Amino acid sequence: MFGAFPLAPGATATPVDAGGVPAEWTATPEADPGRVILYVHGGGYVSGSIASHRSMVSHLGRLAGARTLAIDYRRAPESAFPAAFEDTGAAYRFLLDSGVPPGGIVLAGDSAGGGLVMATLIALRDAGGPMPAGGFCISPWVDLGNTGASIAAKAAVDPMISREYLDDLARQYLQGADPGDPRASPLFADLRGLPPLLLQVGTAETLLDDATRLAARAGAADVRVTLSVWPDMIHVWHLFHTLLTPARAAIAEAGAWMRAALDAR
Amino acid sequence: MFGAFPLAPGATATPVDAGGVPAEWTATPEADPGRVILYVHGGGYVSGSIASHRSMVSHLGRLAGARTLAIDYRRAPESAFPAAFEDTGAAYRFLLDSGVPPGGIVLAGDSAGGGLVMATLIALRDAGGPMPAGGFCISPWVDLGNTGASIAAKAAVDPMISREYLDDLARQYLQGADPGDPRASPLFADLRGLPPLLLQVGTAETLLDDATRLAARAGAADVRVTLSVWPDMIHVWHLFHTLLTPARAAIAEAGAWMRAALDAR
Repeated sequence: MFGAFPLAPGATATPVDAGGVPAEWTATPEADPGRVILYVHGGGYVSGSIASHRSMVSHLGRLAGARTLAIDYRRAPESAFPAAFEDTGAAYRFLLDSGVPPGGIVLAGDSAGGGLVMATLIALRDAGGPMPAGGFCISPWVDLGNTGASIAAKAAVDPMISREYLDDLARQYLQGADPGDPRASPLFADLRGLPPLLLQVGTAETLLDDATRLAARAGAADVRVTLSVWPDMIHVWHLFHTLLTPARAAIAEAGAWMRAALDAR
Repeated sequence: MFGAFPLAPGATATPVDAGGVPAEWTATPEADPGRVILYVHGGGYVSGSIASHRSMVSHLGRLAGARTLAIDYRRAPESAFPAAFEDTGAAYRFLLDSGVPPGGIVLAGDSAGGGLVMATLIALRDAGGPMPAGGFCISPWVDLGNTGASIAAKAAVDPMISREYLDDLARQYLQGADPGDPRASPLFADLRGLPPLLLQVGTAETLLDDATRLAARAGAADVRVTLSVWPDMIHVWHLFHTLLTPARAAIAEAGAWMRAALDAR
């Protein structure tokens, strides 16, 4: 259904090969060509696409004043961990090779894509950079061991994401790899030296604690982090932005945050 | 030292008896008379004053477009728990009795004052309202049992607030009362039905985990909460706003947040 939602006013979409990763630009005429949101869609590492997230991503770009590059990373079960992680890093390097300054880039993603954003930031930090201006995660899934207390506590109010579903997705992606690997579960990685983060999550989510724990661990590691918790919202409610006022408000909050993060660099 | 910092440009300060609680208005000419930040200073329940926080509070008011009412609640050890809590509630009732609409009020405070803000919001919820438009806490102290892991983890980088100091302050305020009383340690209270919250905290704080735990618990209770974590900032760094750029930035973030919370009501 989401694929039928329209692009942001004035935005155009253009396919591109992003260093071997199928991808798509969107831009409005107002977008600063030196600013890019590298967007990593969610879908539990097995589903989701550029098309499913295109409308929302184009609105994020419009509000941030940036182009967007959404990537069609390899998905499970056909491609196991760490294929999706590798493709995200390759797309970032493509942007740098294209002349986009690292300070002009925000890594953004939802759910599994939020996990890929965090894992990629950690890998960039370990490699000595260059770091992007910020990281933005919607309802991030950052613990593939699924140990958050909210997985049980919010089970009755989350209409979408159950423990059984999460466990099955983790199995399809990891295929025997360690769920504690920081590239799979960045929640448990050393988070020092990461750029500013914005984490948005709903309270009707089994994954609520992935976001709140990530905020606490990022803060303990001296990272500038903003956690924004939205009452009664479900997993990645932004996708319903044509129907839902708090989705549009959350996209506006994120757009303003990304614009400020890019301005600060 | 902070008492010598100047008021915000154009602001004036006027003493007032706020329902039996010594207090002070500040306002700029632009302040909407129907909007008030009720400010509860910190100081571990034993120190701090209207004067120590006057400059910072006047800047918060200017940026929020509101008057401020700062209160000189009874302090320990001369006045034990729950005197400070009672005075905060009395000042809120004074505002209502003065004709300020509840939706025109934000409760705000730092450190122990943040704890008083949370305790007062919970008491208002329990009493059936009327609720203010929001709550804003800087470096809140909301667990007088001092059980946050950051009390040890950040001890080496926090130049001000040690476990021994916190334990002594809690003893002076509680004087035998239960530290688990929700009026003393609102972290452990039921947080359902509270208005939107903004929590700001630094990462060079032993009290970091009071803020991150409060955000997690508020989110679990379906409260709209924004947690803003500032790297390398110390306890209530806002007080150094004439000297420190991140202090001015945090005050600006809070002012904008309060203005938006008041606009939404």
